[in-house]
Amino acid sequence: MANMVTVDPGKLIRFSAKILQKAGVPEEDAERTARMLVATDLRGIDSHGVAHLGSLYIKRIKEGLINPKPHITMVSRAGATAVMDGDRGLGFVVGYHAMTEALKRARETGAGFVSVRNSTHCGAASTYAMLALPQNMIGIALTTGGRAMVVPGSVGRGAGINVISVAVPTRGDVPFVLDMATTVVAASKFEVALRSGQETVPEGWAVDKTGKPLTDPKRYAAEGALPPLGGLLQETGTYKGFGLSVLVDILCSILGGSISISELLTQPDTALRANHFFGALKIDGFMPTDDFAKAMAGMVKVYHGLPKATGVERITLAGEIEHEIEMQRRRGIPLDQQVIASLRELAKEFGVEYDL
Amino acid sequence: MANMVTVDPGKLIRFSAKILQKAGVPEEDAERTARMLVATDLRGIDSHGVAHLGSLYIKRIKEGLINPKPHITMVSRAGATAVMDGDRGLGFVVGYHAMTEALKRARETGAGFVSVRNSTHCGAASTYAMLALPQNMIGIALTTGGRAMVVPGSVGRGAGINVISVAVPTRGDVPFVLDMATTVVAASKFEVALRSGQETVPEGWAVDKTGKPLTDPKRYAAEGALPPLGGLLQETGTYKGFGLSVLVDILCSILGGSISISELLTQPDTALRANHFFGALKIDGFMPTDDFAKAMAGMVKVYHGLPKATGVERITLAGEIEHEIEMQRRRGIPLDQQVIASLRELAKEFGVEYDL
Repeated sequence: MANMVTVDPGKLIRFSAKILQKAGVPEEDAERTARMLVATDLRGIDSHGVAHLGSLYIKRIKEGLINPKPHITMVSRAGATAVMDGDRGLGFVVGYHAMTEALKRARETGAGFVSVRNSTHCGAASTYAMLALPQNMIGIALTTGGRAMVVPGSVGRGAGINVISVAVPTRGDVPFVLDMATTVVAASKFEVALRSGQETVPEGWAVDKTGKPLTDPKRYAAEGALPPLGGLLQETGTYKGFGLSVLVDILCSILGGSISISELLTQPDTALRANHFFGALKIDGFMPTDDFAKAMAGMVKVYHGLPKATGVERITLAGEIEHEIEMQRRRGIPLDQQVIASLRELAKEFGVEYDL
Repeated sequence: MANMVTVDPGKLIRFSAKILQKAGVPEEDAERTARMLVATDLRGIDSHGVAHLGSLYIKRIKEGLINPKPHITMVSRAGATAVMDGDRGLGFVVGYHAMTEALKRARETGAGFVSVRNSTHCGAASTYAMLALPQNMIGIALTTGGRAMVVPGSVGRGAGINVISVAVPTRGDVPFVLDMATTVVAASKFEVALRSGQETVPEGWAVDKTGKPLTDPKRYAAEGALPPLGGLLQETGTYKGFGLSVLVDILCSILGGSISISELLTQPDTALRANHFFGALKIDGFMPTDDFAKAMAGMVKVYHGLPKATGVERITLAGEIEHEIEMQRRRGIPLDQQVIASLRELAKEFGVEYDL
């Protein structure tokens, strides 16, 4: 971790918000997006935070692929469910509104679900699932990802690197936050490997066009494809990872009135779109929140208390490591030189003071 | 597949129902259970069908572990959600009532979810998820499984072989039906291997107490533990399979007022219990069912049309193979000699004519 620069989270939010505003995003949306981007860096998900600000979001706004002032519309046909059209807005803005709507519906009926079409890259899915936590709800956030999964029986890029996140509240303890691509790893792991100068990645992360293992991260962008969670063999569960990817595609794309992400992303005018599916379940619709909190604490204790393998110090549940990183990073977020350079460039381009 | 006996599905249902009635299950519940058991065999899930009738369900009724006449109760605290107590009834009976309740709530509000405690082994989860299909709904069925998953960082059996099933309707086409244990394979694959005389199973399916690969199916019962989907290494996604298992545990056990399956199954008086979580999403609550059906057909076509790897004839989505097996097996279900012997024994024990 040499050559890292530590940056104050509050300053990073204000800086990112200013850049987004200069690029045409309204003030409230810019601030919300900046907060969500930095929240991702805070949790250690370096692949989905401010590293993407210039290279992905600002670039796509300038190219006309992201609409900085979307007219978001919604159709509801039942108390607990709705469909939203994101009008190609920033995924953060669209996602925030859709999740807020799911939470509102869950407060009323116990459950709320919003399927979202015509959106764009929304960062880390857990950012949305976690919006449910302060309201004592279970949050669900699914999103389509780039089309880079190898489909069992096929070669090359066929299905979405679709993502599943679920957040469950606890009281006092660390919340349970699962956030997983349905591939063995997310494509962004290759960006991180390149930024940190890694020369090889583990075998099993990617294959080339012919299906042979690809371990050089430099080759990924041009010809890599990602095996589903469970790998490429039927015996190791390839159909499970692929099945989960298709399920996310159905809930995000088909149920929201779009078409399959695998078709959508091959059409030039819709390339780089994303569809989402957000949901919330009110704990109190099932049982008193106090009882739930107690049972959750009990569950965590059971898993933590399992016998440890040789050399293992602790057993962790989804979200624990990220929570600990956040506690540390609230005092400062380490960013690598490449990310810092991209932020300096944005400052220059938009005439914003670089004060990080 | 030598030594298989082909049995008429209708006769098999009537025979199984008679046995269940003789064991004390009321007529309607016995018939429903028999139909669901045979439906599982019809779809080729040989590990979860009538092979379990004597060895699991009847045995546990006789031992007092399953209550043949449960008093099922329900508490609801919101329009879309509820909690059910299964009173240790047959999982099939409890599961059918809970899924029916989820569907009823989804008809009213668009979404319905029922978390179920104090139930027992309910067979294949897809049997319940598929109950949503004729009603143009997406069906969700989660259940805890036996405690046999190795938890990352631990050794031996620590977490549940918890199961996720989701069924999505199509019109005319084959429905999408995902049904997967959160382990690389379900424990029942070892039963099937033993019944069919297989001497080894693929490496990666199980490990022994010390974490070393276990490939002899005869050793599984005594000392096997199952890696999560994604295997045992962080690089291959072990935390994803484990995370999904814990998520299912939370929704089935914690949200339903039980305790974690990992603790529950270690207590002598609750061993062999199961908790479930059933859900339904009404398509029409999101969009017109016609549009959904068209988009689903389009999606299936996209995946089917992907380039094929050398030697591969077709690409299939979740549920397609099972659907084809069902079309064949409607004319007769092949059962192996061991299963036939167990059915003959049940006939003798309960004084029921063996007419298969």
